[in-house]
Amino acid sequence: MRAVDIIQKKRDGGTLSPEEIGFFVDGYTAGRVPDYQASALAMAIFFRGMSPQETVSLTRSMMGTGEVLDLSFLPGPKVDKHSTGGVGDKTSLVLAPLAAACGVFVPMISGRGLGHTGGTLDKLESIPGFRVGLSLDEFRTVLRRTGMGLIGQTPQIAPADRKLYSLRDVTGTVESRPLIAASIMSKKMAEGIDALVLDVKTGDGAFMKGFEDAKALAQAMVDIGRGMGKKVVALITGMDEPLGHAVGNALEVAECIETLKGRGPRDLDELSVELAAWMLHLPAGEPIDAARARIRKALASGEGLRKFREVIELQGGDPAVCEDAGLLPRAARTVEVLAEATGHVTKIGCAAIGQAAMILGAGRETVDSAIDPAVGLVLHKKVGHSVSAGEALATLHVNDARREDDAVSLVRSAIRVGPQPPPSTPLVRLVIQ
Amino acid sequence: MRAVDIIQKKRDGGTLSPEEIGFFVDGYTAGRVPDYQASALAMAIFFRGMSPQETVSLTRSMMGTGEVLDLSFLPGPKVDKHSTGGVGDKTSLVLAPLAAACGVFVPMISGRGLGHTGGTLDKLESIPGFRVGLSLDEFRTVLRRTGMGLIGQTPQIAPADRKLYSLRDVTGTVESRPLIAASIMSKKMAEGIDALVLDVKTGDGAFMKGFEDAKALAQAMVDIGRGMGKKVVALITGMDEPLGHAVGNALEVAECIETLKGRGPRDLDELSVELAAWMLHLPAGEPIDAARARIRKALASGEGLRKFREVIELQGGDPAVCEDAGLLPRAARTVEVLAEATGHVTKIGCAAIGQAAMILGAGRETVDSAIDPAVGLVLHKKVGHSVSAGEALATLHVNDARREDDAVSLVRSAIRVGPQPPPSTPLVRLVIQ
Repeated sequence: MRAVDIIQKKRDGGTLSPEEIGFFVDGYTAGRVPDYQASALAMAIFFRGMSPQETVSLTRSMMGTGEVLDLSFLPGPKVDKHSTGGVGDKTSLVLAPLAAACGVFVPMISGRGLGHTGGTLDKLESIPGFRVGLSLDEFRTVLRRTGMGLIGQTPQIAPADRKLYSLRDVTGTVESRPLIAASIMSKKMAEGIDALVLDVKTGDGAFMKGFEDAKALAQAMVDIGRGMGKKVVALITGMDEPLGHAVGNALEVAECIETLKGRGPRDLDELSVELAAWMLHLPAGEPIDAARARIRKALASGEGLRKFREVIELQGGDPAVCEDAGLLPRAARTVEVLAEATGHVTKIGCAAIGQAAMILGAGRETVDSAIDPAVGLVLHKKVGHSVSAGEALATLHVNDARREDDAVSLVRSAIRVGPQPPPSTPLVRLVIQ
Repeated sequence: MRAVDIIQKKRDGGTLSPEEIGFFVDGYTAGRVPDYQASALAMAIFFRGMSPQETVSLTRSMMGTGEVLDLSFLPGPKVDKHSTGGVGDKTSLVLAPLAAACGVFVPMISGRGLGHTGGTLDKLESIPGFRVGLSLDEFRTVLRRTGMGLIGQTPQIAPADRKLYSLRDVTGTVESRPLIAASIMSKKMAEGIDALVLDVKTGDGAFMKGFEDAKALAQAMVDIGRGMGKKVVALITGMDEPLGHAVGNALEVAECIETLKGRGPRDLDELSVELAAWMLHLPAGEPIDAARARIRKALASGEGLRKFREVIELQGGDPAVCEDAGLLPRAARTVEVLAEATGHVTKIGCAAIGQAAMILGAGRETVDSAIDPAVGLVLHKKVGHSVSAGEALATLHVNDARREDDAVSLVRSAIRVGPQPPPSTPLVRLVIQ
C-alpha cells in the first residue's frame, strides 16, 4: 500500500477501505506518511467528501492511534456531552453535575478556547487551584468517587487527531464536514462512553453558521456514533446571541454556580437542563419528560451544586467559590456600555461580543496567547428585552486599559436596539437521533 | 500575505493574483512555505483549475526563481522543440541538427526518461564520452559555435519547478493541466528562446492519452507562450505505436543517425522534418512549404548529419559513431520474437513495448534506477505491415537474461496480427497556433 495511491483514489472520487484509511492514519501518526501527503489527502477529502462508512473508519482509526478509556468498572451508564462551541456557552459546568447527581457517569474531556469562542478548560482554570491536567489514572479515581470528571485533552487520546488538526489549520482544510465530524468523534469515542449528547450550534456565533450545515454536521456525527455502536443524539441549538449573560472565564463560572442555585439566566438554565435530560434518556430510554423532571429536581434540591462542589474539591480547586464568588479572580475595574436609544434589543452579535471578550484577554487569538481569567463582560439585556436610553447594556471587566476602547466599540456595535422586539426563536431547533 | 489564505482562496474557486502566486512560489522555493502547504495548494488547483492569466503568472513565477538564459548574443532566431514524450520518440536528435543546419539556434534543455517513455539525455549518454552536464557557460559556447546544444535540466533553471514536481509526484497532483503546462513552459521559457514548437502526443503511449485532453494541454501551453510574448505552435501527433523501429538508448541513437542519412523509418523521418519545418516557420513566418523544403534539403545534403557530428564532438562525444554504429554500446545477445500467424500488424501497444524496454534495462522504474544504454528492442514491423507466420516481429537486445522472458511476453502481447490492416491515421492530427 502506498500513500500516494490512497490520495489519488480519493482525489478521483473513490471510496477508501478501512484498511487504506488505517494505513494512512497510522502512518501519519508514526511519521511514516509525511505532512505533505496528509494535507493533500485532506484537500482531496474537502472536495470529494467521505461516505458514512469512510467517516466511521477515519474516526475509528484516529481513535485507535491512542488510548481508549475502559470505564467498565463504573457501576452505571457513561455519558458525555459535546458542543461545537459558541459565545458564553458554559452548559458543561451546569449539566455535568446535574447528570452526575442523577446517577450518570460523566467523563468529560474538553478543549481550550480559540478565537471568539471560549473553552471549558479555561473556565475551570479560573477556579483557584483547579487542575484540568489530571493523569488518566487520577481521572478514573475522580470519576469513581464523584461520578464526573473534567480534564483536558491528553496526548494519549487520539494523537492522530491532534497532529492532523494542526496541519488542517494551516492548509485550508478545516472546513470539511467528514474531517470535522471524525475529529470530534474520535476524541469523544475514546472516552469509553456508552452514549453522547451533541449540542450543534447554528447562528452567527457558531462554527457552522447556517442551519443546513449544522444539520449535516450533526447527522454525520450521529451516523459515526451509530456506526461505532454508541447511542448518540444531536440537538441543533441557536447561537444567535451569547448564551446566558456572562462571557469570560471567572464570570462564566460564577454564572454557572448561580444557575446551579436556581438563579441562572433562562436560556442557560433551559439548555443545560434539556441536554442533561437527554444524557439521562439515552442509556436506557428513560422517557424524556421523566428525565427532565429528575434533572429539575437535582437542580432544585441543590444536588447539582453539591456535585460541582465535590468535583472542584477532588480536582484540587477551592470549593468555597460555590458560596463566595468573590474568591474567583476579579478584574481591576468595570466599565459600563449604556444604551443610546430606548426600545428593544433586536440583536446581540456573537462574533463581536466574543471578539470584545478576547481582546480584553478572556480568549486566545492564537494557540499561544495567554488568558486572563478575570476579564470579560456581562450582558444586562438579552434579545427581546426592553431598554431605556442611558440604561446599562453590558458591563466590561477590564484589566488592561489599552484594550478597553476597542472592546467598548465592539460591544456597542454588537448590541442593536430597535422599536420592536424581534420574533422569539426556540433555543432547540431540531433533535437528530 | 499568508500562504493559508492563498490556499483557501483557490480552494473556494477564487482567482489568484500574480502577487499571490509570486508570494507562494518564491516562498516555497526559499523554504518559507512548507511542502504541506504547497501540496494542499496543488490539490486545490487540481480541483479548481487555473485561468490562463493565473497559469501565465505561475509559469513566470517558477521561471523567475532561477536563471533565464540571455541568448541575445546569438545572431539568429532561437527556437526549441518540446515533446510530451512517448515510446521511441527520438525526433530531437534528428530535428535539432536539421534546424541548426538551416540557421536556427536550438538551445535544447532536456529531461531524463521515467516509466515507459525514454529521455533525450539517456539517449545522448549512450554515445561514448557525450557530456550532457555542461555548465551554462559551456552550453552558450557550444551554441555559438555550432548553432545547437543538448544539455540536461540544471539546478539553476526554474528550481521551483524541480521542487514542486517532486512533491506533486508523491501527493497525487501530477495530473493537473495548468500545473503540467506551467511546469513544461517555465523550463522552456527559461531557455531564452524566441519561439517554441510543441509536440503533444495523443494515444495509448502518451501521457495525455485522449485527444481532447492532449488538445486542452496544447492550448494551455500555447496560451502561456503567447501570454509571455513568445511564438508557440503545438502539433498534436499520434502515439498509438512506437515512433520509428528502435526503442532503447543506443539503438535509438543509431536510428537517428540512419535517419539523418536519409534511411530512417518513414514516421520518424516525416515527423522530424515536420517539427523542424515549424521551427523555421515560427520566427519570421517563412511559409511552411518553403521551410519543409529547406529541411529536406539539409537532410538530403548531409548538412544535418554534419551538424550532429559537430555537436557530438563539441560535447565530448565520439563523432565516429556517425560512421560506425558499432562504436555504440551493444548488448550481449539478441532474441527474436516471431509472428505466430500470417496477416497484418493491427496494433503495437506502446505501454507494453515501453515496459519491455524498461525491464530489459533501457528505462527507469524509479528516478534512482540505473540505465543500460545497450539494451532495448527493434521492431521489424509497424502497424499496417503484412507479416507471415514465423517471420521476426521484433529483435530484443538483452544483457540480463533473467529479464528476457518477461520482456518477450510483453512484446508478444503488444503486437497484434489480424487479417486486415487497420485504417491508417495521419501522424499530425491537429496544429494549434
